[in-house]
Amino acid sequence: MNPEKLKVAIVGASGFTGSELARLLISHPEVTISMITSESHVGKPFSDLHPQFYSRLDIPLESADQVEKVDVDVIFLALPHGVSMDFVARWKDKGAKIIDLSGDFRLSSKEVYEEWYGKKHTYPDGFKTSVYGLPELFSKQIGDADLVANPGCYPTASILSLAPLYALGIIEADSVVIDAKSGLTGAGIKANATTHFSNVNENFKAYGIAGHRHTIEIEEQLGGLAGSATTVQFTPHLLPVDRGILATSYAKVKGEMNQEKLTKIYHEFYQDKPFVRLRNQAPGIKDVRGSHFCDVFPVWDTRTSRVIVLSAIDNLLKGAASQAVHNMNLMFDLPEDTGLNQLPLKP
Amino acid sequence: MNPEKLKVAIVGASGFTGSELARLLISHPEVTISMITSESHVGKPFSDLHPQFYSRLDIPLESADQVEKVDVDVIFLALPHGVSMDFVARWKDKGAKIIDLSGDFRLSSKEVYEEWYGKKHTYPDGFKTSVYGLPELFSKQIGDADLVANPGCYPTASILSLAPLYALGIIEADSVVIDAKSGLTGAGIKANATTHFSNVNENFKAYGIAGHRHTIEIEEQLGGLAGSATTVQFTPHLLPVDRGILATSYAKVKGEMNQEKLTKIYHEFYQDKPFVRLRNQAPGIKDVRGSHFCDVFPVWDTRTSRVIVLSAIDNLLKGAASQAVHNMNLMFDLPEDTGLNQLPLKP
Amino acid sequence: MNPEKLKVAIVGASGFTGSELARLLISHPEVTISMITSESHVGKPFSDLHPQFYSRLDIPLESADQVEKVDVDVIFLALPHGVSMDFVARWKDKGAKIIDLSGDFRLSSKEVYEEWYGKKHTYPDGFKTSVYGLPELFSKQIGDADLVANPGCYPTASILSLAPLYALGIIEADSVVIDAKSGLTGAGIKANATTHFSNVNENFKAYGIAGHRHTIEIEEQLGGLAGSATTVQFTPHLLPVDRGILATSYAKVKGEMNQEKLTKIYHEFYQDKPFVRLRNQAPGIKDVRGSHFCDVFPVWDTRTSRVIVLSAIDNLLKGAASQAVHNMNLMFDLPEDTGLNQLPLKP
Amino acid sequence: MNPEKLKVAIVGASGFTGSELARLLISHPEVTISMITSESHVGKPFSDLHPQFYSRLDIPLESADQVEKVDVDVIFLALPHGVSMDFVARWKDKGAKIIDLSGDFRLSSKEVYEEWYGKKHTYPDGFKTSVYGLPELFSKQIGDADLVANPGCYPTASILSLAPLYALGIIEADSVVIDAKSGLTGAGIKANATTHFSNVNENFKAYGIAGHRHTIEIEEQLGGLAGSATTVQFTPHLLPVDRGILATSYAKVKGEMNQEKLTKIYHEFYQDKPFVRLRNQAPGIKDVRGSHFCDVFPVWDTRTSRVIVLSAIDNLLKGAASQAVHNMNLMFDLPEDTGLNQLPLKP
Repeated sequence: MNPEKLKVAIVGASGFTGSELARLLISHPEVTISMITSESHVGKPFSDLHPQFYSRLDIPLESADQVEKVDVDVIFLALPHGVSMDFVARWKDKGAKIIDLSGDFRLSSKEVYEEWYGKKHTYPDGFKTSVYGLPELFSKQIGDADLVANPGCYPTASILSLAPLYALGIIEADSVVIDAKSGLTGAGIKANATTHFSNVNENFKAYGIAGHRHTIEIEEQLGGLAGSATTVQFTPHLLPVDRGILATSYAKVKGEMNQEKLTKIYHEFYQDKPFVRLRNQAPGIKDVRGSHFCDVFPVWDTRTSRVIVLSAIDNLLKGAASQAVHNMNLMFDLPEDTGLNQLPLKP
Repeated sequence: MNPEKLKVAIVGASGFTGSELARLLISHPEVTISMITSESHVGKPFSDLHPQFYSRLDIPLESADQVEKVDVDVIFLALPHGVSMDFVARWKDKGAKIIDLSGDFRLSSKEVYEEWYGKKHTYPDGFKTSVYGLPELFSKQIGDADLVANPGCYPTASILSLAPLYALGIIEADSVVIDAKSGLTGAGIKANATTHFSNVNENFKAYGIAGHRHTIEIEEQLGGLAGSATTVQFTPHLLPVDRGILATSYAKVKGEMNQEKLTKIYHEFYQDKPFVRLRNQAPGIKDVRGSHFCDVFPVWDTRTSRVIVLSAIDNLLKGAASQAVHNMNLMFDLPEDTGLNQLPLKP
Repeated sequence: MNPEKLKVAIVGASGFTGSELARLLISHPEVTISMITSESHVGKPFSDLHPQFYSRLDIPLESADQVEKVDVDVIFLALPHGVSMDFVARWKDKGAKIIDLSGDFRLSSKEVYEEWYGKKHTYPDGFKTSVYGLPELFSKQIGDADLVANPGCYPTASILSLAPLYALGIIEADSVVIDAKSGLTGAGIKANATTHFSNVNENFKAYGIAGHRHTIEIEEQLGGLAGSATTVQFTPHLLPVDRGILATSYAKVKGEMNQEKLTKIYHEFYQDKPFVRLRNQAPGIKDVRGSHFCDVFPVWDTRTSRVIVLSAIDNLLKGAASQAVHNMNLMFDLPEDTGLNQLPLKP
Repeated sequence: MNPEKLKVAIVGASGFTGSELARLLISHPEVTISMITSESHVGKPFSDLHPQFYSRLDIPLESADQVEKVDVDVIFLALPHGVSMDFVARWKDKGAKIIDLSGDFRLSSKEVYEEWYGKKHTYPDGFKTSVYGLPELFSKQIGDADLVANPGCYPTASILSLAPLYALGIIEADSVVIDAKSGLTGAGIKANATTHFSNVNENFKAYGIAGHRHTIEIEEQLGGLAGSATTVQFTPHLLPVDRGILATSYAKVKGEMNQEKLTKIYHEFYQDKPFVRLRNQAPGIKDVRGSHFCDVFPVWDTRTSRVIVLSAIDNLLKGAASQAVHNMNLMFDLPEDTGLNQLPLKP
């Protein structure tokens, strides 16, 4: 191992997020993967779970207990919500920075968490120190953090769609509708009726109507930008594709607006953000597949006096794994795009 | 030919709509297909264009000119907008009823048409007699009509989503957002960049933002139900599937509302409509694929005080061909479900 | 219930085959569905399992035990292999004809079954009376049978591809390769890694190489036609589609051959078989989707002196449910195409 | 521009191959893209044609005439066959090495070319100097070449499947069947009936039966390895996916064989080839998507005494663009894996 490289542990290897983290980190010039864990596959090569890594990443999977015994600089938790919190509590004083990709520390408090996730939070102190890991909004705080709560996939696309308007405080109360569509990997690697090919292929439907957990994450962040609580109508749908989120957001704004002014607001807000691409046509999810980009396209509809914003991300990357690597770069003072310049794989 | 059966001509055989009309009509117990036309394929067997019909519908294609020379009871125009109008003008006194599947006679006037379609209307008199062919709203008028304008696919799903609320006059002005998603067949059989497999597969994007022609069709019909003009925000998206439309509609309503009341409103409105199925869970487009059903699921969101309605149709059937057959049944006093009881093909 | 209609029971409602049987039988003019069973869902409406049937087939599911108590003319067993055999043994003297869609009675003997299926056969007497239900080869025997073993999906496509040549005894020993590709529904409705969307979508691979159970079924039937044992190389692959099998078969033949002669052999063999369509171009699986057709296209390659035959079926229909209905028609002296004239759903 | 980097021109930017070359070369550490040409889009930014490159590769497209005027080290011709040959003739003395991705110089002679491609070859001298650019077989010759004919996609997968056996001379004459399946991008970016979404999606069929041009390319290369002419039966099929080729190859071999011996033959043959991965299970095309790998899995079927080899590549990469970059690396004495270590994008 190169002693100058960051030593990382990936906890939770069996899912898509763990696999994508491994793919990015194995090519990251400043990183050495020290350990990958999976409780149910201890001893198996990583490539047994994810055959695409065959001959390139065959290291044996270990138990999370082993993380205690090694010296690592950063731990990525690619675990389900409700599981991560215990590991954060356990390793908080280990001297490693932690990037949690679950929903356990994204919200403002134990109370809000328990209301929306319907389960008890066992480490509420984590809310005091965790930083919401959306680099376009909080790069400075992330740089100083020891615990980063990596954002949800839908919230990433949704917040980046409307942040410039909320930051100006010009969104009309009660006017926001976010109609979002995600590829199937958002539903996870677990085999069940939802993920059965024949229920997804050639199909399309809404789910989590009027109650999806990402709603509160979006509301807290957008409300925070505006300086006052906000309510959004958020409806997710399941697309018959592997990857990608497209969010179509609708809002009424206060005061005069036109296309030129709208475009200018977005350009100013994102001028130093290398991974937000302001487009001048409707982005497709394939324009960003396999990349860390968030493509955003704001439209002013003169006829209805409404703003419509389209935004596209790869849910496994900007919506999860590459965002986590971006956060790592910020936490360790690396150039923020280190290891993240993959161009989209299209077609 | 059975002299008691309806003799039909299908004008325009090369597209998906013409092919679906043929598929339905060949199995319709009260119909004989007298003629199918296609200017660019005269003389070829119909099954050359659509090989799935091989050995079952091999009749030679004819020129539309031949329609003049035969006695038919009903003419289906499966033609692009801008082309249909001339045929309607030409055949209006032929003694056959006409069902036009294009957009040429769906709107209220020449002026509105020319504004939204950007081309001159050559037969404005047609607007005086044409009936908007949505059987759930206008079955009586359709029964008396000689010219039916078969509704657009998006309008069918959108109007049926919100009609019960508009009919009660309880929709709040300026609150309606319709976020709609369609399978690729909505883009037609023509080969171009939009329909190239690699631009559709694993992709998803919005189009026609803030200006799609179906917007005005929806607004006119819903406004008509309410008795006053209405504006809707309509955004279509392209799904990587062959068939199906899912419309997700959002609206604020006046007065008190709750789930029970909402459900009751919909049940009463659609109680005698055999092809609208009020669901108690979110419908997928595959639940209606290959059928004449429109599945509707209205939800009341207490938290946001907003109505969300999901509706699903097969864009080629309830959104085009089977709706046309339904109209034919009404026009000739047949039981309205004659030849239309196909169950969805799923998976 | 119409006393003159056939009363049928469908045993095993949760899978794709049970659902397709229900779809076909509900529209069959000579059938009344008396009962549908599912041990794990007793009491639930059938449409709870298969929402596409909502409002059209909501009858409560029953336990298979109830089949004992009712008078039915025909029982369809839509069960896994290894399960069907017990029900056949139990109901063999009930006075109902049985059509078994599993693999339990397709082979020649208990010994062959146990070798290839790796499990004990509990009702070997069934092999004495069961008839292999491929109507194109055995319509007369099926007409007289009380127990029909409905063929496997791959065997249906494979046998129909090569039967005309085997029947003439002109296939060269050891020359046959059948490279077959099936849609995912062939893997069943059970959720597991194989059927997870992300393992199927945009993917393609072979499975069961050199040992798939359908190999022996194909070999027994083709060998039977030739009058001597035969060996075939059979390799199945998994397509990222819902439905359809395409079999590409390769064979060397004895004696002179050319395209004209080859075409003639196939036309003569299938001249009275309404559901085998001899095509003059390569069939796609979508040309037969949703129909009972088997499209066959035999090609002579002068350069290599080899016959190549393409054949396409819908694995859930001609490969399962509609073939079972076809067998029922033959068993009850109905016109063989009764209830089976659905045209392919394309696109 | 870094004066020490290789200056490259990509001629033909509008297709998938040009776009993939750009994607790989922009990240290649030893390369500077000097110029990209497209006759029909001169002056437009490259990212106008391929929006996924927006903000990362916006350089204006130029005319191929401009290639004359600049100093480049290597020219990639991403052009259709029949077009490339003229550019090769024109630029042969320019002092740049040429990698031609078309089929114009892959075969042994003008005569063979004209027979299989059905068009006149205008620069037959090219056959004398061109080297077939399959690095696993000809790395030394490629290293010395000025003109490399980049292999076809099917031939790459097919030749690598059987090369170890042909090289030993143990293939039985007339026994080889290669049943190959390709994603749609193999059909190119041109919009036509073949590439229309609705003809590809949920569909699958064979094409080019008994006469595809890649047949002779495979035969010449495999025959060359064996030292005597060979005939193969090659049948391509079209998969409803964007990328990937799976070739299923069947062969009889001379002498004794078993699985252990077969595996050993392949391991020895490919021991120093970093991009051929010998798998111990059937590879899926998604295991290699987005990568330069060719996954190979040889199986011995004791029952039929036949070898079955599965091989999977990404047709746009190992089957085109990354193979071209691999060839460039060899031609300029760079480590052969420079810029080619992308891991597969899965799911």
